[in-house]
Amino acid sequence: MKTKTITISEFGEFSLIDRLEEILPRAERSDLLVGIGDDCAVVKIEPDRALLLTCDIQVQDRHFQLENISSYQLGRRALAVNLSDIAAMGGQPLYALVSLGLPPHYPLADYEALFQGMRDELKSYNALIIGGNLAQTEKKLIIDITLIGEVHPDYYVERKGAREGDKIYITGQVGASAAGFYILQKYGIKHSQEFQSLVEAHLQPRPRIEIGQKLAQKKLVSAMIDVSDGIASDLYHICRMSGVGAEIELEAIPVPKQLQNVAQVCQQAEKNLILHSGEDYELLFTTRAEIQEAEIKDIGLEYGVPISCIGHIIPQSQGYLIIERDGQRNPLRPAGWDHFKSKTK
Amino acid sequence: MKTKTITISEFGEFSLIDRLEEILPRAERSDLLVGIGDDCAVVKIEPDRALLLTCDIQVQDRHFQLENISSYQLGRRALAVNLSDIAAMGGQPLYALVSLGLPPHYPLADYEALFQGMRDELKSYNALIIGGNLAQTEKKLIIDITLIGEVHPDYYVERKGAREGDKIYITGQVGASAAGFYILQKYGIKHSQEFQSLVEAHLQPRPRIEIGQKLAQKKLVSAMIDVSDGIASDLYHICRMSGVGAEIELEAIPVPKQLQNVAQVCQQAEKNLILHSGEDYELLFTTRAEIQEAEIKDIGLEYGVPISCIGHIIPQSQGYLIIERDGQRNPLRPAGWDHFKSKTK
Repeated sequence: MKTKTITISEFGEFSLIDRLEEILPRAERSDLLVGIGDDCAVVKIEPDRALLLTCDIQVQDRHFQLENISSYQLGRRALAVNLSDIAAMGGQPLYALVSLGLPPHYPLADYEALFQGMRDELKSYNALIIGGNLAQTEKKLIIDITLIGEVHPDYYVERKGAREGDKIYITGQVGASAAGFYILQKYGIKHSQEFQSLVEAHLQPRPRIEIGQKLAQKKLVSAMIDVSDGIASDLYHICRMSGVGAEIELEAIPVPKQLQNVAQVCQQAEKNLILHSGEDYELLFTTRAEIQEAEIKDIGLEYGVPISCIGHIIPQSQGYLIIERDGQRNPLRPAGWDHFKSKTK
Repeated sequence: MKTKTITISEFGEFSLIDRLEEILPRAERSDLLVGIGDDCAVVKIEPDRALLLTCDIQVQDRHFQLENISSYQLGRRALAVNLSDIAAMGGQPLYALVSLGLPPHYPLADYEALFQGMRDELKSYNALIIGGNLAQTEKKLIIDITLIGEVHPDYYVERKGAREGDKIYITGQVGASAAGFYILQKYGIKHSQEFQSLVEAHLQPRPRIEIGQKLAQKKLVSAMIDVSDGIASDLYHICRMSGVGAEIELEAIPVPKQLQNVAQVCQQAEKNLILHSGEDYELLFTTRAEIQEAEIKDIGLEYGVPISCIGHIIPQSQGYLIIERDGQRNPLRPAGWDHFKSKTK
């Protein structure tokens, strides 16, 4: 009798990470403030200084396609994705380690442009690439970046911390990156001029480092995450870690003007682009009810980025809900862009 | 007229890293004590404390073969390779971040065993896995580990620092891992019992953390590296970084008893196994001429590991030499196991 082997393709990334809870011992070191399960790990190194540590592995044809992005842009983008995790904790980037898996016929010029992009993405923070490793792969380019940042141990923001009554905010716009992605799929980079801002949102995400820091330092935020897998999925992380529910209004979520148009052209459901598409790398966060919206929005204005209130935290028992445009309340599915769950199934 | 594209397959790993020198700015941060080009980067965080940072990406069928190693062993081994880089700087491991690229049909049980192995390899150092990331690959398992350690800023050991007259030492034995590798290739894991110690040397390398620390803390060592690519290649890194030459005696290099036998059985040149085969993860280091051999060897004995003097440092102008068994001096080629240079060429 043959037993079927359970393979990882039956799980999403988050269930696989959950399975590690039993395997890996919980923090027994007093210097480890936050371990697995947040945007970054947090390690206290001095009374007034903690390190943030995060890594992100990106695989060709799963996270990026070489046809539609220059190597320089890809370098910037790969680093921006990591910077966004530092932003979501309220920290400042310091150092990067870069591991590359390179297929044998990868052009030398692209290899160099990739590093130029990564270097330039770090430049404005005075952060540096300080190490790395190279290996050869058969066919696909693989980029794994570890980013080390710092934060004051009193100021970092976790995913947990939201409570009933908190307001839910998001920086910038949602769905732009996904719209850019589908436009690139349909028209390619050369014929996408009409949708340039969406394509740029996809190819060159802007991590919200300064806003994340300001929100954290002013202690305005109860929980924070960056939107990598879609609002529905990432807000659910906050809710799960905080033991709360949430209610957001579809109408209140800021989207690009062209989104509806793109949804039609690319035969995508607009609502799907808004709720379940990822890689916007905006900050999604909660604040206590008594904090004025104006104070939050002013911080956005300071950096030229709108911040919108999209809902509020409710008790877990009341659920995880979306208020539709017609006012109806529906359950919000926490399904997003899970790069991991097999698309080949 | 079509110009041929230069691809990275025309370069070895080290030439590719060298090319980054022009792209990446040299350390402009006073806290960065050692940047790219050593076993670890070194960052000073307090007057008496520095962090060590290193990463290592390992690709299925290039660095390991799933047929011949259990997932638990693979986890331990992948971490040991990183621990060895911490050992080569004289440091203590603290934290690991683990990025995995997983093919869809990778068994869940193997995924869990992999993490159990990594966890256990860290256990004796009270070190922890504190973060990571998962992505899906098409076919191959990819393991990229970033390891963070610590060291006193006065005690860490770099590759540079060797000077004329220094003695060259190595811990343990050389060629055991390569011999184990070829035995596994020939007989497979089930029929390799006769060569068990060699197979173990390949599958379960023992990073020399304690010896590296002791040597560093006693300030006995002028330069140090771990042998990942073979003595010839790794000693050359020390020489190049230190601006010196070296002369080592083939006869003095400690090898396993069965090496000659394995070389014959597997049709490998024995000398090649000794000089140009990697993954022994022993420490290769230099000490000033006046430091007694007995003092060095005693440290090895303390940890049950022989330490052997295999040669000495000479001026760069005198070359990079091997003294053959018949007493003849020949140039030593710094070619080793460069996993990167295309084997498919």
